[in-house]
Amino acid sequence: MAAPIKIVGISGSLRKASNNSGLIRSAIELSKTVVEGVEVEYVDISNLPLLNTDLEKEGTFPAEVEAFRQKIVGADSILFASPENNYSLSAPLKNALDWGSRPPNVWGGKPAAIVSVGGGHGGVKSHYHLRQIGVFIDLHFINKPEFFLNGFLPPAKFNSNGDLIDEEVKDKLKHILLSLKAFTLQLQGKI
Amino acid sequence: MAAPIKIVGISGSLRKASNNSGLIRSAIELSKTVVEGVEVEYVDISNLPLLNTDLEKEGTFPAEVEAFRQKIVGADSILFASPENNYSLSAPLKNALDWGSRPPNVWGGKPAAIVSVGGGHGGVKSHYHLRQIGVFIDLHFINKPEFFLNGFLPPAKFNSNGDLIDEEVKDKLKHILLSLKAFTLQLQGKI
Amino acid sequence: MAAPIKIVGISGSLRKASNNSGLIRSAIELSKTVVEGVEVEYVDISNLPLLNTDLEKEGTFPAEVEAFRQKIVGADSILFASPENNYSLSAPLKNALDWGSRPPNVWGGKPAAIVSVGGGHGGVKSHYHLRQIGVFIDLHFINKPEFFLNGFLPPAKFNSNGDLIDEEVKDKLKHILLSLKAFTLQLQGKI
Amino acid sequence: MAAPIKIVGISGSLRKASNNSGLIRSAIELSKTVVEGVEVEYVDISNLPLLNTDLEKEGTFPAEVEAFRQKIVGADSILFASPENNYSLSAPLKNALDWGSRPPNVWGGKPAAIVSVGGGHGGVKSHYHLRQIGVFIDLHFINKPEFFLNGFLPPAKFNSNGDLIDEEVKDKLKHILLSLKAFTLQLQGKI
Repeated sequence: MAAPIKIVGISGSLRKASNNSGLIRSAIELSKTVVEGVEVEYVDISNLPLLNTDLEKEGTFPAEVEAFRQKIVGADSILFASPENNYSLSAPLKNALDWGSRPPNVWGGKPAAIVSVGGGHGGVKSHYHLRQIGVFIDLHFINKPEFFLNGFLPPAKFNSNGDLIDEEVKDKLKHILLSLKAFTLQLQGKI
Repeated sequence: MAAPIKIVGISGSLRKASNNSGLIRSAIELSKTVVEGVEVEYVDISNLPLLNTDLEKEGTFPAEVEAFRQKIVGADSILFASPENNYSLSAPLKNALDWGSRPPNVWGGKPAAIVSVGGGHGGVKSHYHLRQIGVFIDLHFINKPEFFLNGFLPPAKFNSNGDLIDEEVKDKLKHILLSLKAFTLQLQGKI
Repeated sequence: MAAPIKIVGISGSLRKASNNSGLIRSAIELSKTVVEGVEVEYVDISNLPLLNTDLEKEGTFPAEVEAFRQKIVGADSILFASPENNYSLSAPLKNALDWGSRPPNVWGGKPAAIVSVGGGHGGVKSHYHLRQIGVFIDLHFINKPEFFLNGFLPPAKFNSNGDLIDEEVKDKLKHILLSLKAFTLQLQGKI
Repeated sequence: MAAPIKIVGISGSLRKASNNSGLIRSAIELSKTVVEGVEVEYVDISNLPLLNTDLEKEGTFPAEVEAFRQKIVGADSILFASPENNYSLSAPLKNALDWGSRPPNVWGGKPAAIVSVGGGHGGVKSHYHLRQIGVFIDLHFINKPEFFLNGFLPPAKFNSNGDLIDEEVKDKLKHILLSLKAFTLQLQGKI
């Protein structure tokens, strides 16, 4: 029996009751129940300092940065919950991406997927900026399905803690995990 | 012995002496000499009508469109020579992409690479618009290496016919073909 | 009494029953009724040849291109109806933009606005590619309001000819015209 | 005699010897010597916390955020020195933009310009992401000239402190200031 695929889940929102963070928690739950063969681990990015390469001393990173980078090194693939702030990705997410890209780049060659929830178009404009970043840091994003959710249309999809409570949306999230799993196995030459 | 990978080469410029078209011709030459296991075929897009879905009659496409689509259907992967016009891709290339995407989409799942030559930054701004298009039509672009060439810096890289005459640039183009070949085999589960 | 602002309306769709073209027709109607001080003229782009600079002979453009360019030269500002095709703007619209940009660029310094109708997010992804193009060809787009319409949600917003029949949407379109008018006057130093 | 235009200069790099920050310092120097009618003030963004709207308590911002926002409120226009990190803008700059956009948005209606220095294409890919952000937060960017500088090509353009020492580049920077000044006056109805 093959070892499960290790997926790191990163939320670009630092708010406690963030719905985007709720998507990662829901993905963890799905990985323990209906999606076999994957493990999803939530990796926090709230304690990373704002990017400043002067903080790198004699080739070493600040402790929080080093711990974050090791989490990425150990992952098979990445699940980003990417809120849209002002038509682009969030500053905390960009910050984490940039710390991870410092030589040696820890993202290189990894498959990835993006999910988002927001008003209006559900965060979609953040996706294409993130995908452009992915060209340089060498992430391979799944193309299909895409997941962007208008979280403000009734009925409520999240409770006040930011937990996903809508079964239809959970099913869509499940298909993201299945697609990311399949693409990871494909790129690893296992299917 | 495995059958060679069939790559369709498309140039977004219709000018007779286009340097971008010259890149495709050079890729064909490389595929016959130093890059084993790939065949590159030049597919012309100059005779496609401007996209107008009223031209689709009872589920059939105009003859030129149908012929173009069949070329894509038969390809393992795609090499785009994508000139930058006004900070985006060229109209003829967008036109070809859109005709190919009409249901059933002929691009779906194919690996692809982009090369470009131009002034200034060598056409790079066309790449990221093309990559965004690729999300929807389901192309999988190689991330590395990227190829954008300032064609106006001395010494001359092309002759007056638009033929690539620079050995260093040919070597870069060779590495695009090798990367596209490897990614195609990887996605096809052959390595 | 000041002369009205001359706005050229361009639709990126060539389909006869295009809803995007319907937006331009509706803008014309609004300019004759509720929006004072502007004239909107529909300028057709369906007969332009696919961009090929070999068609420029001794500094002259094909007749259809020249006629199109003169329409832009005579305009104070531009209203684009920009359908989204495969996450970018349409090929016919890109083609028209590129012909207009051939030296001497006819777009330079003109204010502009974008409207779109489509499925899903209503064409919004075409807007930002068009705005990037506008940096180079020197268009000044209004920022607010933005107009992208999901045309597939009930109730029907257009009839089978592509005519806009929804009063609420007409009101949004009116505010685009008012904003474009105000920005045009501002840039022309008239307010 | 008219009051000078107040320009806030923001550098997206926090490194002490950043060349991008050097561009802002050089703009300040130019405003005191050869560019009449403008004042440029350097506004630091290094002490802003990573965006987390939980830090907003009863409608008030953290003190550093509030101080930053007041600087923007008092500005006529904005000069961004925008390093490109991983094909997009820097995290610290995105962070500052997002804090400024929290209701009430402090950027609205202000003219702006972007300069950048980096390797390769000189940071240009950060510009178009920043411009897309500007649509939502309602910045009006100058189109021309654009300023992106490959800082690694000889001869050295900056000293080891990140101070701009190249007269030709200073002249280009001067033209950015002149264009931003003219566009500010135009939008303010003063020319």
